[in-house]
Amino acid sequence: MPALPAGEVGLVTPRDFVFPGTYTFKNGQTLNGFTLRYETYGELNATRDNAVLICHALSGDHHCAGWHRADDRKPGWWNNLIGPGKAVDTTRFYVICANVIGGCQGSTGPSSINPETQRPFGNSFPFVTITDMVRTQKLLLDHLGIAELHAVIGGSMGGMIATAFAIECPQFVRRCLAMATTSREGAQAIAFNEVGRQAIMQDPAWNGGDYARDGGPRVGLAIARMMAHITYLSDASMDRKFGRRRTQTGAETQFEVESYLRHQGQSFINRFDANSYLAITRALDDFDLASSYGSLEQAFAGVQAETLVMGFTSDWLFPPEQNRAIALALLRAGKRVSYAELSTDLGHDSFLLESRELYSLVHGFLERPAGSLNFAI
Amino acid sequence: MPALPAGEVGLVTPRDFVFPGTYTFKNGQTLNGFTLRYETYGELNATRDNAVLICHALSGDHHCAGWHRADDRKPGWWNNLIGPGKAVDTTRFYVICANVIGGCQGSTGPSSINPETQRPFGNSFPFVTITDMVRTQKLLLDHLGIAELHAVIGGSMGGMIATAFAIECPQFVRRCLAMATTSREGAQAIAFNEVGRQAIMQDPAWNGGDYARDGGPRVGLAIARMMAHITYLSDASMDRKFGRRRTQTGAETQFEVESYLRHQGQSFINRFDANSYLAITRALDDFDLASSYGSLEQAFAGVQAETLVMGFTSDWLFPPEQNRAIALALLRAGKRVSYAELSTDLGHDSFLLESRELYSLVHGFLERPAGSLNFAI
Repeated sequence: MPALPAGEVGLVTPRDFVFPGTYTFKNGQTLNGFTLRYETYGELNATRDNAVLICHALSGDHHCAGWHRADDRKPGWWNNLIGPGKAVDTTRFYVICANVIGGCQGSTGPSSINPETQRPFGNSFPFVTITDMVRTQKLLLDHLGIAELHAVIGGSMGGMIATAFAIECPQFVRRCLAMATTSREGAQAIAFNEVGRQAIMQDPAWNGGDYARDGGPRVGLAIARMMAHITYLSDASMDRKFGRRRTQTGAETQFEVESYLRHQGQSFINRFDANSYLAITRALDDFDLASSYGSLEQAFAGVQAETLVMGFTSDWLFPPEQNRAIALALLRAGKRVSYAELSTDLGHDSFLLESRELYSLVHGFLERPAGSLNFAI
Repeated sequence: MPALPAGEVGLVTPRDFVFPGTYTFKNGQTLNGFTLRYETYGELNATRDNAVLICHALSGDHHCAGWHRADDRKPGWWNNLIGPGKAVDTTRFYVICANVIGGCQGSTGPSSINPETQRPFGNSFPFVTITDMVRTQKLLLDHLGIAELHAVIGGSMGGMIATAFAIECPQFVRRCLAMATTSREGAQAIAFNEVGRQAIMQDPAWNGGDYARDGGPRVGLAIARMMAHITYLSDASMDRKFGRRRTQTGAETQFEVESYLRHQGQSFINRFDANSYLAITRALDDFDLASSYGSLEQAFAGVQAETLVMGFTSDWLFPPEQNRAIALALLRAGKRVSYAELSTDLGHDSFLLESRELYSLVHGFLERPAGSLNFAI
């Protein structure tokens, strides 16, 4: 692959999609209207079939490329992948990314005001599933006039949404790219999420989920984030980044990894809602394709999309085996699928890596002719 | 090895060793007297050289074999290993196990009353190191009239203490058996400990370390324990034990692994002091033989003991490599050492495993003639 020019999408403005009807969640609960905040980059073509949907992870949002203001310290979370001439080329594709339902970055979620009570929904927000994230985003894509998705792409929870999208809307999704993901979490991943939830719910400021928008269980949420952050990295990458180095903080000496984690916890509580964290981790834990459809092969029986699954060797949260299992089940279901395993030592967050190999795989997957995918491991 | 008979040490009574003098900690702080609670099994021989010291892990204590009362639900924590005819044979050895200084099971620690203030030491307790755990236990062994240790044995933190004992008292220790341990934690292990400490210290009930003996940061301590407990198990063992099974608790459905962890957290807060947890995890994080002595080889330069190091394949907290590194450094320092790596899928807690292979290794190491150890990997 030739080197990709590093064009930028530049300044971007989020927009709100307001769905005016009644939305019925998978579990039967309803919401009278909802909002999804989203961004788009590039232009929809005349045949309205060059759209690429980007799906974010647990703590991500709709802002995956470009800058909101010229003086922003950081661009969107997947800016290294998305832009003119980049792996997801915005001169060719109309790229869309929406904050999930249940989120807290502008989309309707537990921190939104319940019009019936004029207070945040809090813990009374309907139970959100990955399927609901798919269905609400499908309503957004319909609203945008998209005829079909050239591709749906996501890592971690985003990979679950991408996979579920290909299952839920088989005629609509032509290519599906799922990275660092799983068709169902194991007991360890559930356990880490549960400890995070306990940290939040045992914080007196959680108050049964009823707290002011600028208040809430900040301590518990910071603890949950610190712990989860460890699971996103690898032992090797933490050793390389921090080792056992110590740093002086006032009178106190602490390990650098300690101050790093405290910073991660503190910055997270300023941008994330604790009830959203509960709702989205529950959606993650609840996701289980084999259980929902009888088997993984049956889950994939109707899939029309060509799929690329990517695992990362150092990912111990959703390890390579769990990614490979998705690809193998698609293969057994008679689908076009390829599996790539990248050797990295950055852990689960490797899908956000600045890696020529990753860019090349994504670029190739999006640009190759339809039907040219063969299973390779 | 022939099958070992499963004799039991039976009912045991803890005793207290009260050191009346001034103890100076490694960092220079002092304590006017201290107590170590301990148990012994078997009899000291006439030459006073058949003693085996057992060293416990972070949340362990002096009660490693037998029962305190006939109706005890569980025996001591290493009862499967220690007893008449067992791997650590109490018909041959005089076995001693003491709760560490800084602990909370009867030995002097942060929850002990400071005679100067008539309140618990709390956060003002001297900074405890692994070296202090060694030196205070050496005072106990002197008090018991032990001429030399036939062996010192420990897993996890107990392995650190065992290794440090062989360094600190080279003439005194003939054999050293360290399992599932490390000569220094990596950044990930420090990070997990730090999140646990933050959970405790951010709990308002911690109150800067000043709380009543029956109070304290129960919520934070439970969170810390739940998280740490995940790191003691393996992904595979959690999947086998819990998978994604759900259980009904009142009106709520939750994953079995969730209720298991909640139970772990709740039972821990009834037996452990939060300030002890802070002190002992800090001792763990602080332990760094290479840094303390210039290199690992220099740390081991004076060791006289024959050493057996055991790593467990599924231990991701103190992985096999970190155990092997101890053995290799001892070898490079010209010492008699053997390394054994056991294939298990129980994670860090594998050293507590009921395993004939483990019993055989321990038994063989204790009973073989002196000087017969050869390095084998």
